[in-house]
Amino acid sequence: MSAAIISQGDEILSGQVPDTNFPFLARKLAKIGIAVQTHLVLGDSPGRLAQAIKSLSASSGLVLLTGGLGPTADDITRYALSEALASPLQLDQPALEQIEQHFARLKRPMSPVNRVQAMIPATARTIENPWGTAPGIAAKLGQTHIFALPGVPHEMRAMFSDRIEPELRRLGLAESAIVSRSLHCCGAGESDIFSLIKDLMARPENPQVGITAKDGVITVGITARADSPAAALELLDEKSRRICSRLGQFLFGRDQQTLAQVLGELLVRKNQSLALAESCTGGLIGKLLTDVPGASKFLLADLVTYANQAKIQLLGVPEKILEKHGAVSADCARAMAAGAIARTGADWALAVTGIAGPDGGTSEKPVGLIFIALARKDSSGKPVDIDVQECRFTGDRQHIRLRASHAALDCLRRALLGGR
Amino acid sequence: MSAAIISQGDEILSGQVPDTNFPFLARKLAKIGIAVQTHLVLGDSPGRLAQAIKSLSASSGLVLLTGGLGPTADDITRYALSEALASPLQLDQPALEQIEQHFARLKRPMSPVNRVQAMIPATARTIENPWGTAPGIAAKLGQTHIFALPGVPHEMRAMFSDRIEPELRRLGLAESAIVSRSLHCCGAGESDIFSLIKDLMARPENPQVGITAKDGVITVGITARADSPAAALELLDEKSRRICSRLGQFLFGRDQQTLAQVLGELLVRKNQSLALAESCTGGLIGKLLTDVPGASKFLLADLVTYANQAKIQLLGVPEKILEKHGAVSADCARAMAAGAIARTGADWALAVTGIAGPDGGTSEKPVGLIFIALARKDSSGKPVDIDVQECRFTGDRQHIRLRASHAALDCLRRALLGGR
Repeated sequence: MSAAIISQGDEILSGQVPDTNFPFLARKLAKIGIAVQTHLVLGDSPGRLAQAIKSLSASSGLVLLTGGLGPTADDITRYALSEALASPLQLDQPALEQIEQHFARLKRPMSPVNRVQAMIPATARTIENPWGTAPGIAAKLGQTHIFALPGVPHEMRAMFSDRIEPELRRLGLAESAIVSRSLHCCGAGESDIFSLIKDLMARPENPQVGITAKDGVITVGITARADSPAAALELLDEKSRRICSRLGQFLFGRDQQTLAQVLGELLVRKNQSLALAESCTGGLIGKLLTDVPGASKFLLADLVTYANQAKIQLLGVPEKILEKHGAVSADCARAMAAGAIARTGADWALAVTGIAGPDGGTSEKPVGLIFIALARKDSSGKPVDIDVQECRFTGDRQHIRLRASHAALDCLRRALLGGR
Repeated sequence: MSAAIISQGDEILSGQVPDTNFPFLARKLAKIGIAVQTHLVLGDSPGRLAQAIKSLSASSGLVLLTGGLGPTADDITRYALSEALASPLQLDQPALEQIEQHFARLKRPMSPVNRVQAMIPATARTIENPWGTAPGIAAKLGQTHIFALPGVPHEMRAMFSDRIEPELRRLGLAESAIVSRSLHCCGAGESDIFSLIKDLMARPENPQVGITAKDGVITVGITARADSPAAALELLDEKSRRICSRLGQFLFGRDQQTLAQVLGELLVRKNQSLALAESCTGGLIGKLLTDVPGASKFLLADLVTYANQAKIQLLGVPEKILEKHGAVSADCARAMAAGAIARTGADWALAVTGIAGPDGGTSEKPVGLIFIALARKDSSGKPVDIDVQECRFTGDRQHIRLRASHAALDCLRRALLGGR
C-alpha cells in the first residue's frame, strides 16, 4: 500500500511558508505501514490540482491533501476535488452547524465567507473538525481513498490523529509494516559517528541505516520493513541494540526526544533544580527546556542578561571581570553561572556567553566563539565551578545559537550521568 | 524557464527531518524569475534518483538537488548523477585539497571516509564549499543545467547565494520575472483580513493574492508575473499599495520581516530600552527578539521566572498577589512588568504569564489562558501600567506559546506607534 501526499498552496510552492504537514503525515503513515511514494507540492490552480488528484489516484491507494480548505478565494481544494470527482459542490447542513458552533465557542461572530467551508462535492462526505472552522473532506475515486485536510498545522495534526488514522485502520489500508527509529547523539561529529557504526550501514540492507547532522545533534536513522509490525519491530530492535552499544554516552535519546527533554527528565529523576544565565543565546535555552511540558518541575529561572549592566545587576558578575576579560570570556561565564546559583538557590546553573554574529567578531574573539560554564551548589549552598568550555562554531547566527544551546545542555547531561 | 527541485534523503521522505532547503531555494529562484514547477522528495535509492534526474532534465531547464553528498554510505547523490550522466566517478584533486584544508582549519583530523566527497562524474565539475566538507557538483544533461548541493542547511544556503545564484545569472537562465511580497498582520483574524481585501483577490488575476495564518500572524501574499523584473515589480507595487492602505495598523511588516524584528527596529528608532518578564513562554519572547542581530541595542534583560519563588525573588512580585490571585492572573502580570522595570531600569517592560498546557488547566483557568502586561517607566523612574490583556488561545503548547509571544510583542508595537 503506497500513499501520495499533495501539499497545496502557492505559499508553500513559492517557499513563503515551510510545509510542516508533510513530514508529520509521512511519519504517521510509516508507523502504520503505509509508505509515502510521492510528495507533490502544487500552487493555487484548481485545474492542475484536479489533474494531480486524478493521476495520483491511479497509482496510489491513498491520496492525502493538505491545505486549501479555508474560507478565502485562494482556497481551491474543494473546487479541485469537485472537478476530479465530477461531482458538483453542495451545502452540507451538519457541517455548517459545526462551523457556526465553532464561532459560538470562540464568542466571535461568524463571517458570511465561512459558509463556503460547508460546501463539499455531492459524492463526498465531511470530516468533523472541532479544532477549527474548516471541516475535512473524504471521498473515493475508483479504489483510491482521498482525504482532504486543512492546512493549519495544529488542526491538521489533531484531525489526522483523531479521525483519519482510525479510519485508515478500519479500512484495512495498512499492508506491510515499516518502522523507523532515530537515535540522537551529541558531543561527536558526523564522521566520528559514522566511523563507529560503518560496518552496520552496508546497502541495500534491511533495516537501513542513515546518518544526518543538525545543529550539533547527529542522528542515526534506522528503518525496518517486514510483513507484520511485530516482525519489523524485531528487526529494528536487533539493529538498534547493536548500534546503541557502539554509541555509548554520545547517545542521548531517540525519535521525538529532544536533548532538552532528556535533560529535563534526568533532572526530575535526580530531584535537581536548574537555573540558567544566558547572554548570546538570549532565552533560547530556556525556550528549548520549556518547550517540554513539566519544565516547572526543575527550572527555577532563566536570567537572560543581554546588557553588561544586567550581568552586573541581576547576576552579580564583578565589573572587574567585564573590564579585564570582557563579557565573552571563560571568567564571565563562570561568574554568570555562580551568580545564577546565588540568586536563585538552584542546584545547578548553566551559563552561556559568546558572539552569535553576524557582527561583533574580532580576530581575537571571532563570531562563533562561545563560553559555556556549569556550576553546582555545594553542601553549604555556595556555587562551585564544575566545567567551563570554549567552543568555536561556524555557520549563521541561528546555527551558532542552537549549537551553543545544545552544547550547554549536553554539558549538564554528561555531568549528571557522570554523577558529579 | 522552469525549475525542478529534488530533495534527497530517506530522513526527509520518512518525515524524520523537515526539508528546510526547498522553501529557501523556491524563494531564491522566484526572485530571479525562475518558477519552481516540481518539487520531488526521494529516498536513498541511487537508481530511482538517477531516473528522476533524467526525466526532470527532459522537462525542466534547471534541476537542483539537495542532500546526499556527505561521506557516509547513505549519501548516494554522486552515484545517481554518475548513472544519469553515464559518466564514471573520478577523484577531483583540487576538491580533495579543499576538503583537507577544511579539516585543517577546524584543527580536526580528516577521516579517510571524507575522501569520497572529492569523487565526481568525469563530465561534471565541483563547486567549492568553504562552509563544510561536501563540495557541490555541477553538470549538464542535454540543455539542462544540474546542480547538486549539500543537504546541511547552512552550507546549502551559503553555497546557493554565493556560487549558484551568480552562475544562474551568468548563464542567463532568468527569462520572465516573478516577484512576490508577503504582508504580515497581527491583531486580526484570517477572515477579518479577508473581509478587508476580498474585492482585491479575484482569480485568476495577476498579481495573485492569497491569505495564510500562522501562530497569530496573518499574511497576505502577493505574486506578480511579467516579462521583466521591472514590469513585475510595478504590478506588485501597485497591488501592494492598495492592499496596504486597507490593512492599516494590523500590518506590521513584509517578506522576511518578523514581528520581533519590526518591534526591535521601532525601539531602536525611538531610543527606548526593553526588559521582559516571562513565565509560561519560558524565554521564547527573548529568543524571538534575539534571533535578530543587534537586539543588544534595546534589550536589557529577560527575567524568565518559571517558579513562583523566582517571581518573588527576581521580580519582587508580592506574595500576597500569588496567594490571592495565583501566578496566572492580571495582577501577577502587572506586578511582573513593574518588577522588570524596577530591577533593570528599562523604559518598557512586557510580562507574560499563563497556562501553555497540555496540563495545569482548570475550568476557571483553562489551558490557553494568558495574561499580558505592558508597563512603562515614568519620568521619575517608576513603573506605570499601560495595558493588561486577557487572551484565550486554542491549540497545542507550541502554538499557544507562540500566539502569546506574538500578542505580547504586538501589544508593545501598538503602544509605541500610538505614541503612548
